Amino acid sequence: MVGGYVRKSKAKGSSNVSYSVTCATCDEVNILSHREVGGLTLPLLHSSHLYRVHDVHRTSITATLLSHMFSQSQGRAVKQQLRFYSSANMSVNLEGNIFVTGTNRGIGLELVKQLAEKTGKEAHIYACCREPEGTSAEALRGLATQYPGKITIIRLDMSDEDSILTAVQAVSEQIQTAGLNLLINNAAINKPDSLAQLSATGKKDMMEVYETNVAGPFLLAKLFHTLLQTAAEGHTSEGDKMSCRRAAIINISTIISSIEKCPETFAQAKMYPYRTSKAALNMLTRCQAEDFKIQNILVTAIHPGWVRTDMGGEQAPLITQDSVHGMLNVISSLSNKDSGMLLDWQGEKIPW
Amino acid sequence: MVGGYVRKSKAKGSSNVSYSVTCATCDEVNILSHREVGGLTLPLLHSSHLYRVHDVHRTSITATLLSHMFSQSQGRAVKQQLRFYSSANMSVNLEGNIFVTGTNRGIGLELVKQLAEKTGKEAHIYACCREPEGTSAEALRGLATQYPGKITIIRLDMSDEDSILTAVQAVSEQIQTAGLNLLINNAAINKPDSLAQLSATGKKDMMEVYETNVAGPFLLAKLFHTLLQTAAEGHTSEGDKMSCRRAAIINISTIISSIEKCPETFAQAKMYPYRTSKAALNMLTRCQAEDFKIQNILVTAIHPGWVRTDMGGEQAPLITQDSVHGMLNVISSLSNKDSGMLLDWQGEKIPW
Repeated sequence: MVGGYVRKSKAKGSSNVSYSVTCATCDEVNILSHREVGGLTLPLLHSSHLYRVHDVHRTSITATLLSHMFSQSQGRAVKQQLRFYSSANMSVNLEGNIFVTGTNRGIGLELVKQLAEKTGKEAHIYACCREPEGTSAEALRGLATQYPGKITIIRLDMSDEDSILTAVQAVSEQIQTAGLNLLINNAAINKPDSLAQLSATGKKDMMEVYETNVAGPFLLAKLFHTLLQTAAEGHTSEGDKMSCRRAAIINISTIISSIEKCPETFAQAKMYPYRTSKAALNMLTRCQAEDFKIQNILVTAIHPGWVRTDMGGEQAPLITQDSVHGMLNVISSLSNKDSGMLLDWQGEKIPW
Repeated sequence: MVGGYVRKSKAKGSSNVSYSVTCATCDEVNILSHREVGGLTLPLLHSSHLYRVHDVHRTSITATLLSHMFSQSQGRAVKQQLRFYSSANMSVNLEGNIFVTGTNRGIGLELVKQLAEKTGKEAHIYACCREPEGTSAEALRGLATQYPGKITIIRLDMSDEDSILTAVQAVSEQIQTAGLNLLINNAAINKPDSLAQLSATGKKDMMEVYETNVAGPFLLAKLFHTLLQTAAEGHTSEGDKMSCRRAAIINISTIISSIEKCPETFAQAKMYPYRTSKAALNMLTRCQAEDFKIQNILVTAIHPGWVRTDMGGEQAPLITQDSVHGMLNVISSLSNKDSGMLLDWQGEKIPW
């Protein structure tokens, strides 16, 4: 992986912000105005490279530029990904009981890590995985030890109805008076694999992927509905305002769930079972948003970006930490207007 | 069911077209200009009534007006449904081998009937149903007798992989040199039922509906892919032009597959399993359109309207004959630009 950095600098007393763009491959440096960066064109940057935008006042990453994700929309891809959001929006503002699925690795593990780090004492995280005692959950167990009393590991197999019932029951006994504030449906599978052609994809793949990616989240939300309602009613001071601190379901979706954008993304990753399941998950999200709005339960689908995980592959341009950092920022700021939407990890709306 | 008629009349030698609108309930007659009909407002017509537009020169139905389908968008619903397409576009122009699923009743049965009536001698219809010998297929057997040599009834259960394999094999043996010109995936189920609440809907419903409505059409298209390719290659004179005469897949979808329109339609019919399955079917349609475009195979999803069938219910404003008439007209005129789209029975694009 090669990369570069865009650093923001501002001369004292001047209103002109400029950026220095350094490429990690050739060390070439470009000085750009804010306007030039906003209208960034590919010849300036190397395609397939990763450029990160740092806010020098916070020395933290504020945005990531992806270039050349899809060959047919190079200029557009870069421009769409270039966003400078202010550091004021970068805080994680979540609390209460948070239930996250698929947390032994990748995005789920990082969600638990950053939630444990960035939430206050009043937050508790129920972190689910299929085999809490197995070697695959070693890192998750390490986090539970690092943050004592903050993380409870729960056994959960999203393809198994009994496992879902047992997990919900176990958590319900602990949180029945406070309710559940946030359910993050992150667990998902992709079969047969990202590069599989239609000929190598069977009915079994279609059914298994749907079972874990759609039927599982459907059932979990249905079983947790009463506890989400309890949490929503406990925040009476907020009136009709929805938030992920109050009561919410976040369904982790993907940009390739977008039927509209299918012609742009199909050639890179056909993945019939995964795509159809995630389009269905988007519909589930919007149905739940309608069904639960009277109870002030927010439901939003989020695309984490193309992340370098076991599922996303080595060539993905975004690292897990940045994706989760962005998603938690977005999740913290959601309100009524975002319920029933599909947003990316930087809060931008994605068409269905 | 109450209804009324809009009849078109034109004074000889005059370019002014006017319409007489008769309400079947109160016999009130309104005379309207073309412009007035185009901007039709609800106070003029009775809500919840059905108005049909007849072309007096053909004495056939050319469009159906639905008023007040959804209380919150009355004016819009009427206006959107009011279309006058010319009689020149009303012909059915299909040929070759046509495979239709779910044909023992409702829309499927009517598709077979109108296809048998309106196509020439060179067309052959493979009409599928679960129990060709049962009483439920009596009307279909009647059609096969009425049009000797034109209809072959095929046993097919879309939830059963072996049944799909057997059906494809049986048809393949008969059409291997000519190929398959048109596959219409019409069979679909809705569980538990249209009025079921979330609490009455289980994982089993989610899985069974997906199996028949998505995994079935996925598998059928995959298995018929070679035969569709054969048919497409046989039409070399058409160059890169796609059509349903050449090689095409039509997936029967629904307006409630539209994630975008979910807030408008959800309260009337929650149907989580059906909605999620049909959103997935739309994604399947667009994936297939991308995957098969190099072979000039057209793939389009079509919404038949809200039709008075066993599934649509008694209160549906559209009769099966009108829906199928409209759909066959639309199907006859599809070309490259329509591949990967979701259109209604009058050819209008529906958002994802």
